[in-house]
Amino acid sequence: MSKGNETENPLMPVTARGEATRRKILDAAEEVFGELGYYEASISEITRRAGVAQGTYYIYFHSKRTIFEELVTDIGERLRAEMRAAIAGAPDRIEVERRGFRAFFNFVARHRRIYSIVQEAERVAPEAFYAYYHKISQGYVRGLQEAMDDGTIRKLDPEAIAYTLMGIGHFIALRWLIWPPQGGQKMNNDELPESVFESMIEFISNGLSTHISG
Amino acid sequence: MSKGNETENPLMPVTARGEATRRKILDAAEEVFGELGYYEASISEITRRAGVAQGTYYIYFHSKRTIFEELVTDIGERLRAEMRAAIAGAPDRIEVERRGFRAFFNFVARHRRIYSIVQEAERVAPEAFYAYYHKISQGYVRGLQEAMDDGTIRKLDPEAIAYTLMGIGHFIALRWLIWPPQGGQKMNNDELPESVFESMIEFISNGLSTHISG
Repeated sequence: MSKGNETENPLMPVTARGEATRRKILDAAEEVFGELGYYEASISEITRRAGVAQGTYYIYFHSKRTIFEELVTDIGERLRAEMRAAIAGAPDRIEVERRGFRAFFNFVARHRRIYSIVQEAERVAPEAFYAYYHKISQGYVRGLQEAMDDGTIRKLDPEAIAYTLMGIGHFIALRWLIWPPQGGQKMNNDELPESVFESMIEFISNGLSTHISG
Repeated sequence: MSKGNETENPLMPVTARGEATRRKILDAAEEVFGELGYYEASISEITRRAGVAQGTYYIYFHSKRTIFEELVTDIGERLRAEMRAAIAGAPDRIEVERRGFRAFFNFVARHRRIYSIVQEAERVAPEAFYAYYHKISQGYVRGLQEAMDDGTIRKLDPEAIAYTLMGIGHFIALRWLIWPPQGGQKMNNDELPESVFESMIEFISNGLSTHISG
């Protein structure tokens, strides 16, 4: 454990080993909350999967609710970090959207259970839930506003378009990566069909285009 | 109660009075599930708000789960009926979208709590949940395919576009009609700001346009 920090923030381990343990518990919590839901999940199941003692758990987290809240915040941070890395250096806004959406779907495909966790947070941990979406939307609004100001995309209400784009990603992910196949239709849930991705990007690209259309 | 029908389908009252009682219980259930969530809601709270005896409740519904499932189905049917009525006679697909989205937001604004109910159904009553979205998407795919076939909108994957449009409606409704104001910003949650609606429709209209853009 670190030297002076415990008094200031006793629940935040700063050594590499402490951080690894904390990460192990958060990953186990992601599994357990994702499979069982908040109400059915238990701290004992989380510690069992993480392979740590209950006493160790309480060094890092206060309660079931606090680990759930931290998990939602953690998921949001990891998602935004991956999207930021993916869009770095993109030459224009459409390419930002293409790379950002690609990174988003990759993230969801690798963490399918985060979706039910984040959705359940609306009732269980509303502050963490709203912060999750608010932070994503803030980055979006900033990027869209810039592209509108320099005339590379159509001038529209940037917040309306931010939520429009977030909604598109959400539902495409639900339908092709999260929900079970519909009506017995065989689907490859490992990744999004390319035709779906390209149709979505073409729609978005035209929606944002400055060209006048009729 | 009706005469012979009870033996065939004892849980489906067919008299006007029976239907009115069933409606009253469903409306109370919408209130209670919406406010408290599935796990905290109780049949006794539902019957109290509906003003009926628990014995009466069990004439119409088997359990907490069955009324929850029926409620999700009922919400989906009412929403689709209102949207169908709104788009009847629209001269083209863009006008269908404009009227359909308007009807959707009006419905959500009048039934804010349905949103948390439908979302909670994913875990509590998955069959009713998937049927809810599947039925909406089927109508969408049919309408989009027709408009693509007659060349009035851009030829894209119709199911990808159906989920794209459903996602847009979902997130715009969440942000402006369902979620509390963000960052202390004062908002009128009674209806969607016109500028948001118009930006969204302009984006969709361009997204679906057959004109080539760059």
